[in-house]
Amino acid sequence: MLRLGQLAAAGRLLPAGPRLRPPRPAGGRLSLSRSWPPRPAGPVGDGGLLSRQVRAAAGEAGGGGRGPALKTPKGTRDHPPAHAALRDRLLAAVVACFKRHGAAAIDTPVLELRETLMGKYGEDAKLIYELQDQGGELLALRYDLTVPFARYLAMNKIANMKRYHVAKVYRRDNPATTRGRYREFYQCDFDIAGQFDPMIPDAECLKIVHEILSDLQLGDFLIKVNDRRILNGVFAVCGIPESKFITTCSTVDKLDKMPWEEVRSEMVGEKGLSPEAADHIGEYVQLHGGLDLIERLLQDPKLSQHKLAKEGLGDMKLLFEYLTLFGIAGKISFDLSLARGLDYYTGVIFEAVLLQQENDHVEESVSVGSVAGGGRYDGLVGMFDPKGRKVPCVGVSIGIERIFSILEQRVEASGEKVRTTETQVLVATPQKHLLAARLKLISELWDAGIKAEMLYKKDPKLLKQLQYCEDTGIPLAAIVGEQELTDGVVKLRDVATREEVDIPREKLVAEIRRRLEP
Amino acid sequence: MLRLGQLAAAGRLLPAGPRLRPPRPAGGRLSLSRSWPPRPAGPVGDGGLLSRQVRAAAGEAGGGGRGPALKTPKGTRDHPPAHAALRDRLLAAVVACFKRHGAAAIDTPVLELRETLMGKYGEDAKLIYELQDQGGELLALRYDLTVPFARYLAMNKIANMKRYHVAKVYRRDNPATTRGRYREFYQCDFDIAGQFDPMIPDAECLKIVHEILSDLQLGDFLIKVNDRRILNGVFAVCGIPESKFITTCSTVDKLDKMPWEEVRSEMVGEKGLSPEAADHIGEYVQLHGGLDLIERLLQDPKLSQHKLAKEGLGDMKLLFEYLTLFGIAGKISFDLSLARGLDYYTGVIFEAVLLQQENDHVEESVSVGSVAGGGRYDGLVGMFDPKGRKVPCVGVSIGIERIFSILEQRVEASGEKVRTTETQVLVATPQKHLLAARLKLISELWDAGIKAEMLYKKDPKLLKQLQYCEDTGIPLAAIVGEQELTDGVVKLRDVATREEVDIPREKLVAEIRRRLEP
Repeated sequence: MLRLGQLAAAGRLLPAGPRLRPPRPAGGRLSLSRSWPPRPAGPVGDGGLLSRQVRAAAGEAGGGGRGPALKTPKGTRDHPPAHAALRDRLLAAVVACFKRHGAAAIDTPVLELRETLMGKYGEDAKLIYELQDQGGELLALRYDLTVPFARYLAMNKIANMKRYHVAKVYRRDNPATTRGRYREFYQCDFDIAGQFDPMIPDAECLKIVHEILSDLQLGDFLIKVNDRRILNGVFAVCGIPESKFITTCSTVDKLDKMPWEEVRSEMVGEKGLSPEAADHIGEYVQLHGGLDLIERLLQDPKLSQHKLAKEGLGDMKLLFEYLTLFGIAGKISFDLSLARGLDYYTGVIFEAVLLQQENDHVEESVSVGSVAGGGRYDGLVGMFDPKGRKVPCVGVSIGIERIFSILEQRVEASGEKVRTTETQVLVATPQKHLLAARLKLISELWDAGIKAEMLYKKDPKLLKQLQYCEDTGIPLAAIVGEQELTDGVVKLRDVATREEVDIPREKLVAEIRRRLEP
Repeated sequence: MLRLGQLAAAGRLLPAGPRLRPPRPAGGRLSLSRSWPPRPAGPVGDGGLLSRQVRAAAGEAGGGGRGPALKTPKGTRDHPPAHAALRDRLLAAVVACFKRHGAAAIDTPVLELRETLMGKYGEDAKLIYELQDQGGELLALRYDLTVPFARYLAMNKIANMKRYHVAKVYRRDNPATTRGRYREFYQCDFDIAGQFDPMIPDAECLKIVHEILSDLQLGDFLIKVNDRRILNGVFAVCGIPESKFITTCSTVDKLDKMPWEEVRSEMVGEKGLSPEAADHIGEYVQLHGGLDLIERLLQDPKLSQHKLAKEGLGDMKLLFEYLTLFGIAGKISFDLSLARGLDYYTGVIFEAVLLQQENDHVEESVSVGSVAGGGRYDGLVGMFDPKGRKVPCVGVSIGIERIFSILEQRVEASGEKVRTTETQVLVATPQKHLLAARLKLISELWDAGIKAEMLYKKDPKLLKQLQYCEDTGIPLAAIVGEQELTDGVVKLRDVATREEVDIPREKLVAEIRRRLEP
């Protein structure tokens, strides 16, 4: 099969049309972040060169220091054409996977009532962008796509739904733009809402993560899985009072960034757990494995007595059974250190991490964290329903900005040029006073669905016109001169080979289509 | 050729897959706004039925009157799956046209610095959404895509560029949701920036409007064209002081909604023009025509003496020449009453209106205003450039929300069902204890790129599974029972004809592809 996502290997997530490899300038490393191609003076360049973007990244560019600040807001950025084209293809690959799994699209407003968002994100609520009170409702920008989805389900009394949503969300976080962390960023969410038999939708979410990460060829990866019920069971059997579950959870969550000793001292110092309880937790949360570990914990004399933990372990076993049938259990690790920050999770949680960057050939490697995450949140919709009706949900969010950072570096390292337009033909003239002929011919091509451009000059030089084709990757030039007009033909030039053939005008569209067939 | 946009006729802007026409319930008019298909209890319904959307439209739905308000902000709305699918296809048709004309995509943040937007929209600045001062930069939501584009060009010192941008913009306007006017809405913009020979890019913008409106088959339309320089000339020769040009412009702009007598009395009463000046203006602004009118005004003894007006008329003549070569002059009207609201226009302005709704078969007709508009703004980039460098620009914005309102009504009137998913096959089992067989088979199909679903139940009834296919438009069912497992085959069922054939398992993917070929 042709997996869309497989296009994502360096240079392969590029347009289907001809690709350009620019000549390497002497002594310089050439990359996407250089100004290539040079913008010709006459014609329209793509204007989307990453060199400018680098300056402008994350709103840090100034406008020359005078007059009003010429920048984007802190932590946000423009996407010039080379970015936008690459990102559109990445999003298309993710959406193709969501559609393969039968999801429908929805969209919700960027604005939500302030009260819709409050009380859903714990301490992170301070990162929500709020709008000025301009004499109406109190509004805020959405923080994620999950809470709006739950609001949508409750508001429309929907009891089951499989949907995807690709859209921007907003967080007043400290931006770390080199790691792909912005204040405005895309989320790509897939969620299954409804009361179903256990772990079947949960397993599908993991299958989706596996498919997307495999398709995008980002290198080796691991999907860590845990369950909030098991974690709560561990805390309970270690003697932690229930009031400290959430705060202990957030300390455990740091195990992927700091060694156990530091995590332990935060537990004892900041969080006030007893050293014995901390050590006891440590015995559990450093465990990871597969079915064997699940079986061992099911035999654990204390944990197996904890109702929720036992339920969680039973479901985990079922999950691994399904993942084995899907053929993906090899990439899944049951990892008791995985906790995830958000308050609303109630069951299975998971997070995908890249195991190595495969960035040996990249000069500066991109450090990215997890590239996908999600879990089960069975209580969130009930928080919105006036009667508290619950709609169990499980979902996954693909960390598209981090993946984009990796692909961007990879394209940059490959030195390949991303075509930012899809133009197939430049309509050109070799002599003066032929603007009317160009306008007539290009109009015929547009009406036939051919992607065509011409220079916006009355009498451009032929050389400039052909140079524009080379600069922007247009594969064909359709040339009409006085002789061609007399003969009723168009000279069709292959820009790469420079070969020219006269084509009868009425056959031109068919010939262009034939030449550009894949 | 196959024009993407031609799909937009009722029922043709629908998925390529099989379409469903639901049985009409007795005595009831069936439409998109009814709850069809019924959501089955077990499987995942699409949840995107417009009946809910109608209640929820424009944030006017309550959540039952208790607890927190369960609604979207005033003037905004959710897009349930049937909406989202239709809108995605509409946007794809518009983007296809922009790409046919060689434009590259860019994206800019939804948030802009407040000072970037201020001083660009005249009186409309009061409609800008401002963010709360949360201890950083003062931010606002973008009001259109033109000002951010100009900011982008100035910030990156880009002198020429052809770009499109499809994104949401925000206006604290009075919503009129039945007419497709929202506070959050999509704009689809195409702009050409750069110093070129006169009227060539301007003519291309009009060609684009013509192509899109023709492709979408919205009925007959007219594109009105005028020039700010001509209008200013008219005001000058009528003895209006320059300080009153803009306010007079906004009164003239009302001529499409009110008769001349009312416009005249506003000029004399509110705006303080002399009755003679108003009458004099009236002679001009009621004129509309083509080349003949341009020639007449070029002979006008007073107007032809006004430098800018003469320039404008010369350019208008050139524009009509180019439009004739494009074969679209028949749909263009040089109309001196067209003024357009925004301050930043400096030359050609235009607006497309539908001449009739072709809504005879629709019960409630949608009243929409202009469906596209644009013009030349040669001074806007210079407002951002620290050295005041000018980058001449011309662009067009497609009024996608209004067009969507029309298409929505048309689909509703046709009684056709918009499929909201693209699922090709439901993997089903006829007996109990076959969940593992389903999981294994569906996994094979996903890995082969087939769009497949299954019910999230351990032992669903076959009838329920087949019913789900009918409800959601899935054309094929792949059934594995004990006998099929033993024989190494899968029973492939055509949901419409109910015909079933055993296919060897290794040939299943090829057979599904063969069946679903267009």
